[in-house]
Amino acid sequence: MTLKVYLSGEIHTDWREQIVEGSAGLDVSFQSPVTDHAASDDCGVRILGAEPDKFWHDAKGAKLNAIRTRKGIEDSDVVVVRFGEKYKQWNAAFDAGYAAALGKSLIVLHGPEHQHALKEVDAAALVVAEDPKQVVQALRYVLTGALPD
Amino acid sequence: MTLKVYLSGEIHTDWREQIVEGSAGLDVSFQSPVTDHAASDDCGVRILGAEPDKFWHDAKGAKLNAIRTRKGIEDSDVVVVRFGEKYKQWNAAFDAGYAAALGKSLIVLHGPEHQHALKEVDAAALVVAEDPKQVVQALRYVLTGALPD
Amino acid sequence: MTLKVYLSGEIHTDWREQIVEGSAGLDVSFQSPVTDHAASDDCGVRILGAEPDKFWHDAKGAKLNAIRTRKGIEDSDVVVVRFGEKYKQWNAAFDAGYAAALGKSLIVLHGPEHQHALKEVDAAALVVAEDPKQVVQALRYVLTGALPD
Amino acid sequence: MTLKVYLSGEIHTDWREQIVEGSAGLDVSFQSPVTDHAASDDCGVRILGAEPDKFWHDAKGAKLNAIRTRKGIEDSDVVVVRFGEKYKQWNAAFDAGYAAALGKSLIVLHGPEHQHALKEVDAAALVVAEDPKQVVQALRYVLTGALPD
Amino acid sequence: MTLKVYLSGEIHTDWREQIVEGSAGLDVSFQSPVTDHAASDDCGVRILGAEPDKFWHDAKGAKLNAIRTRKGIEDSDVVVVRFGEKYKQWNAAFDAGYAAALGKSLIVLHGPEHQHALKEVDAAALVVAEDPKQVVQALRYVLTGALPD
Amino acid sequence: MTLKVYLSGEIHTDWREQIVEGSAGLDVSFQSPVTDHAASDDCGVRILGAEPDKFWHDAKGAKLNAIRTRKGIEDSDVVVVRFGEKYKQWNAAFDAGYAAALGKSLIVLHGPEHQHALKEVDAAALVVAEDPKQVVQALRYVLTGALPD
Amino acid sequence: MTLKVYLSGEIHTDWREQIVEGSAGLDVSFQSPVTDHAASDDCGVRILGAEPDKFWHDAKGAKLNAIRTRKGIEDSDVVVVRFGEKYKQWNAAFDAGYAAALGKSLIVLHGPEHQHALKEVDAAALVVAEDPKQVVQALRYVLTGALPD
Amino acid sequence: MTLKVYLSGEIHTDWREQIVEGSAGLDVSFQSPVTDHAASDDCGVRILGAEPDKFWHDAKGAKLNAIRTRKGIEDSDVVVVRFGEKYKQWNAAFDAGYAAALGKSLIVLHGPEHQHALKEVDAAALVVAEDPKQVVQALRYVLTGALPD
Repeated sequence: MTLKVYLSGEIHTDWREQIVEGSAGLDVSFQSPVTDHAASDDCGVRILGAEPDKFWHDAKGAKLNAIRTRKGIEDSDVVVVRFGEKYKQWNAAFDAGYAAALGKSLIVLHGPEHQHALKEVDAAALVVAEDPKQVVQALRYVLTGALPD
Repeated sequence: MTLKVYLSGEIHTDWREQIVEGSAGLDVSFQSPVTDHAASDDCGVRILGAEPDKFWHDAKGAKLNAIRTRKGIEDSDVVVVRFGEKYKQWNAAFDAGYAAALGKSLIVLHGPEHQHALKEVDAAALVVAEDPKQVVQALRYVLTGALPD
Repeated sequence: MTLKVYLSGEIHTDWREQIVEGSAGLDVSFQSPVTDHAASDDCGVRILGAEPDKFWHDAKGAKLNAIRTRKGIEDSDVVVVRFGEKYKQWNAAFDAGYAAALGKSLIVLHGPEHQHALKEVDAAALVVAEDPKQVVQALRYVLTGALPD
Repeated sequence: MTLKVYLSGEIHTDWREQIVEGSAGLDVSFQSPVTDHAASDDCGVRILGAEPDKFWHDAKGAKLNAIRTRKGIEDSDVVVVRFGEKYKQWNAAFDAGYAAALGKSLIVLHGPEHQHALKEVDAAALVVAEDPKQVVQALRYVLTGALPD
Repeated sequence: MTLKVYLSGEIHTDWREQIVEGSAGLDVSFQSPVTDHAASDDCGVRILGAEPDKFWHDAKGAKLNAIRTRKGIEDSDVVVVRFGEKYKQWNAAFDAGYAAALGKSLIVLHGPEHQHALKEVDAAALVVAEDPKQVVQALRYVLTGALPD
Repeated sequence: MTLKVYLSGEIHTDWREQIVEGSAGLDVSFQSPVTDHAASDDCGVRILGAEPDKFWHDAKGAKLNAIRTRKGIEDSDVVVVRFGEKYKQWNAAFDAGYAAALGKSLIVLHGPEHQHALKEVDAAALVVAEDPKQVVQALRYVLTGALPD
Repeated sequence: MTLKVYLSGEIHTDWREQIVEGSAGLDVSFQSPVTDHAASDDCGVRILGAEPDKFWHDAKGAKLNAIRTRKGIEDSDVVVVRFGEKYKQWNAAFDAGYAAALGKSLIVLHGPEHQHALKEVDAAALVVAEDPKQVVQALRYVLTGALPD
Repeated sequence: MTLKVYLSGEIHTDWREQIVEGSAGLDVSFQSPVTDHAASDDCGVRILGAEPDKFWHDAKGAKLNAIRTRKGIEDSDVVVVRFGEKYKQWNAAFDAGYAAALGKSLIVLHGPEHQHALKEVDAAALVVAEDPKQVVQALRYVLTGALPD
């Protein structure tokens, strides 16, 4: 059993690396959005031509990124969504809703300060974790039945 | 043609009333979440028993509210999601993602200050508006072909 | 908003009547399986001919009942599954699984003595209640936003 | 043709081993839930933190196990559900209903003492067997056309 | 509960009338194909222009009839398929397969002389009957729980 | 049986009126796109604000019109697509492909001069007609079994 | 591109071998039902126990065969259904209907004597052929674009 | 992540080769229709027998081509549709609509002269490009996050 996992959300800390490295040896394949903030913001206009209006600048980029994001979510068994400490992160919550509607197993990862604000997202999840280590432990358990010591 | 419209998101201003009243005479049926903030927060424990831990207090409520929210979205043709000026509003973005994954027509309503942060949500929408009046005009056009003067 | 509710499970107490009567005045439509135990057991052979082998006697009846059960679940928004004090009640758990796979909102109703044995079913539910009154309160809240005093 | 088979249900006898070993040489891939009873019960709290309330203790575990269970069922062609002699085994019946709603081919395995209580589950099955050997023979026939001597 | 029933198959006896009349007073709505044999055969060329080649003559008619047939099956809860004594009746078996793939409840109606030849169709059915009266009794039971005397 | 019919395509002749008037007395409900060419082109900017770039001017309008078009197609049993004598009419062919992918019954209406260019669209249709009168006759036959004299 | 092809229907001539051998070198994978007539008829009772009543004898076998048949159809891109000269062959027509409802590409193979009786099945097909050689040529064209000399 | 891309539309220039060659080294698999115009037009009658009527000549060919086209689209993650300078190209727009209804990521490729006529198609796309190089850059970005210099 290969578990296909999509890692959505916050791009300013190394949580993805922690999960990928912690999962070494497990039969998991990971996908992620493009996590280079500048590339992600400007990809549309860099490839398809400049836009003087910021709305369309962003629209071009967001639609191009959606090719990767939707494939990542639709191909996955599990979607992990990380909410960090800063920014609105509405795209993370959007991905969580998208994944929930498709019946994907949802793992939400956030600190206690966001507990109340994320209650609807957490209520749709099968796992709510605070630390990437817990996500690794959950993936290991799902794949092998092994629990942490 | 009756257009079924679900009004998701911000609950602290009268945007829903503006849309419902502005749509008088149109063949639209509206659904909304429970918009009484206190009731929405406490419904789970009030009906199903108190929880000492805030996480489960919120989980009980969020799951109960999900019965209404999911039916509202799944029954609808159009989902309007309003992002207000305050709070994280992750449930609004979650609803938008949920609606998008189900192929619902999405109308997003927000001020220009949120443009960049909502670019992924806007990119999934068929209409991005700033004012509830525009939503009414859009619904009127969809139903009757009439444009504003 | 009419809420379509299917009442599955235990047929030896009056929990269905309590919910239907308690919901008077609400915009709910209820469906149920045939709750006459003898008719439900013998319907197949009574209509389609006797079977000397109990297995086929039961198969004929169970398949005929499935026409009603599946329509009831598939047409519903909410499936309430009641587990009583006696019997194996595997058909109740089967209905719960069937409803969960279809994405129906699941309400499970059982006493505390079954808590551990029903943990997988409860984990798939949006509401876990012990008393039919709570189900009525939940339906009222979902439909009207009103909480019990 | 590789046949993907999920083995659901009873975890206290060696029926899974009998089927897996009996199927040696056939093009079958098997998946199962975590069958270590203690790990399965406690996985949630071991990874995600202790819960004083047994209900939430169990909820955390059941949801974590659901990641594996649902993937196992959704990925499969055939779901074998075994009902043993003891316990309520509502999760087995839940899995059977879940599989049936997804249109999976269902094989039910149980002794004659459970025949009447399982009539609705059996009626949804393509094979009802009493012995793991019969399941192996059925898989062999499906894959190769060979019948037992 | 209105039960939507599509009556497919043999068009040379009055079995449809027997079922419709026998169901008087029940909350059932019936749909059928066009049962005028000559009209059904020639509808395509009568409306869309003559074809010298019988294959295309038939193709035009069969496709036009498919508008009604597919809507009838797709809108239904129950599909009753009658196999009569004569002809190949492959369209009846095709409808049965179509209905089965859509998860419709299937009732098959045929005499004992066709039992072996229809074993795959019967195996997909929830009810196998020999007499239209049994179909009426089955529909009455499904809708009201009442059994024949 | 009410037949829901969506009338897509060419907007410069009165073919829709011919079909609607010819169908008087039949149990059909018709939906159409907005057929006022100027309103359809400018609706986006009139409601949501002007765009200096024609591409975004058109994008705003096309997305707003898509709310009506997609609902019309998704709600329908039959989609009639008319190709006229002029213009590229790619939106008509797009609607035909959209309808085909959803499994809608497709009726294509065009003159013989377009036969070869429309071969892929015609091949996906159940009826290919040259005259709106034939569409009316086809709808009458589907609903009532009556053929033209 | 590997084309997955299911070969349904008549089991008394070597048409499957002709197609499989003719397709040597093409990127096709073929699946078929069990074509040993006696094994197919008796598989149920041989594995699951004898039945005195021929109806249940056949039911057990037909359901066991359905595991293979449904997987074969559901996994395929193309379903070829062959109608031979003898027998009712309702299972072939059932498979054709099942495949059509799932949106599979249907190829029907039969002699001209069955043309009228198979008009509804042919109308649902993308290819109607008389000779297995034509099926091979069609598969070769689909995969490589090469036409017969 | 392998991206599956279907290249639909215009067959008279080398845009497919440009994209395939430009994508060397990327993890993409490409599918296309048969692009030999004469073979595509005549395949039906060459394999299945001549037709005196051009309509049926074309119908046979278009249906045979549909086996490849639909598999290509249904198997893909991304559908690129190219509109060239000549012809009606209704099959390209049909494919775009088909892909959109299935939720595929749509890339539209056309010159500025077609902008207004393609506004509904473009509005359903995630990328609108003028040059095959941009499509290559978009695929590279989606797969690797790398932007052009």
